Amino acid sequence: MKLTILGCYSATPRILTNPTSQVLEMRGNMFLIDCGEGTQVQLRKHKIKFSRIKHIFISHLHGDHFFGLVGVISTFRLLGREADLHIYGPKGIKEIITLQMKLADSWTNYNLIFHELTTTNSQCIFQDDKVEVHTIPLNHRVYTNGFLFKEKEGDRRLDINAANEANIDVAYYRKLKQGFDIINENGITIKNETVTKPAKKPKSYAFCSDTMYKEDIVPIIQNVDVLYHESTFLESQAHLTERTKHATAKEAATIAKKSNAGTLILGHYSTRYKDINDFKLEAEQVFDNVVLAKDGKVFNF
Amino acid sequence: MKLTILGCYSATPRILTNPTSQVLEMRGNMFLIDCGEGTQVQLRKHKIKFSRIKHIFISHLHGDHFFGLVGVISTFRLLGREADLHIYGPKGIKEIITLQMKLADSWTNYNLIFHELTTTNSQCIFQDDKVEVHTIPLNHRVYTNGFLFKEKEGDRRLDINAANEANIDVAYYRKLKQGFDIINENGITIKNETVTKPAKKPKSYAFCSDTMYKEDIVPIIQNVDVLYHESTFLESQAHLTERTKHATAKEAATIAKKSNAGTLILGHYSTRYKDINDFKLEAEQVFDNVVLAKDGKVFNF
Repeated sequence: MKLTILGCYSATPRILTNPTSQVLEMRGNMFLIDCGEGTQVQLRKHKIKFSRIKHIFISHLHGDHFFGLVGVISTFRLLGREADLHIYGPKGIKEIITLQMKLADSWTNYNLIFHELTTTNSQCIFQDDKVEVHTIPLNHRVYTNGFLFKEKEGDRRLDINAANEANIDVAYYRKLKQGFDIINENGITIKNETVTKPAKKPKSYAFCSDTMYKEDIVPIIQNVDVLYHESTFLESQAHLTERTKHATAKEAATIAKKSNAGTLILGHYSTRYKDINDFKLEAEQVFDNVVLAKDGKVFNF
Repeated sequence: MKLTILGCYSATPRILTNPTSQVLEMRGNMFLIDCGEGTQVQLRKHKIKFSRIKHIFISHLHGDHFFGLVGVISTFRLLGREADLHIYGPKGIKEIITLQMKLADSWTNYNLIFHELTTTNSQCIFQDDKVEVHTIPLNHRVYTNGFLFKEKEGDRRLDINAANEANIDVAYYRKLKQGFDIINENGITIKNETVTKPAKKPKSYAFCSDTMYKEDIVPIIQNVDVLYHESTFLESQAHLTERTKHATAKEAATIAKKSNAGTLILGHYSTRYKDINDFKLEAEQVFDNVVLAKDGKVFNF
């Protein structure tokens, strides 16, 4: 599981900082999460192949989370993309994009498939044989979802030396990975657990931005390995969270603690703060394992 | 007259090059012309005060000329702008912007005034006491206008030494600048031309992008001081101009020559070309005074 932060600041793109966008690699999928203005240039900078992105998840329709989407879609078209592209986002996103394509007389030559979201309960919006993605209903000024990315339980892992010693033909390896006992060439039953190891523990990642403190999400993200939770403010500006519907670093840490998250990544900093390390210090008063998102930072979990 | 090129490449924003946007300063006005993705960051980089921009002109609704507009409008709002902002562009531009504001529930707290363009004849779309702006109907894949910015005839310039010698009271200076003769303190009539110089020759700037070769524009821009004309291709790719409705460097130079332009600025280069100096060399075969637009370049005329 690899997470690349393309942008993690709130409000507006600036010379040195970018609005929200990140890329999550999970079991062969490359998910683009949010798409502020400038995302396509950030993708180029970080050498992320456009063709590997097949699914884009948009949390909400504030500009710092989606003004770069129409440019990404348009550039994919100009580069001759043929593969389908799926867009998951709030109702209205299809109208915004198609209106611009219509007025530019520039329709994509690839399939652009919109999955418009309206429910306020967590729901599974994507799955393949390895991964599933669920919405995390958030509390912001407009309809907003976070996204929970979960690896599915994988196959058991073969202990190749033990399998050789037990004289098992290669043809049975698939069955072994699926957990079955098998009979070897000498007619002896080989118990699965003697030649395989358990599957790797499936990993999970929760993206929660933008939102004010919302304890309802705790059951949805319980035991998540990595939680990205917005922290627009420090507690010293906590009085601003109600009106703007954003969270403080301390509140993000409280959600991480209650969810029993493995790691908390903070982001979506207001540009009013000079030193983002203050967010880490504040969160660490509540939760131990805190790291700071920074534009261009890559996390391997 | 000062022109700042924020971006001058075609198609998509890249790490080192930006799509079309430029700022023209003319007699106290600061006009933003086209607004590709990333324009607001380019404005910051080049220290152009957001508050000085009161008029934005959009040539057409292809992404590389206007995907940055909604971000500019949104950022002006976030920074607490109060002054009116006028947008001139093709019909449909208001719907695109207002739809996004509606879905983001983020209306501007300043007046956003759209001037939607539909005519295919040149028309005056803005004037104040010092400047006027006319459309230049172009020939592109979608409805497109260039823009002609013209200074109005200014006041005569006072020769302060001559005025002192002629014993003229300061109270009459305004009348002198307006071209009147006056009577001095000794009762002697002072002929205007003995104490003033002619007004500076009004300057003009024509922005023509995107378009294929269109000779019809020559009468509109006749004797323009500075002509920016797109040159997406070199003559070696001239076969592409019909389908894409773009122009070559040689065609741009031909328009400059026929218009008796003072200076030709080339831009909107296709990124397929490694050395943009080839555009200059090609144009110079037809027209003498050719310069190349580059992102960040400032021209003073």
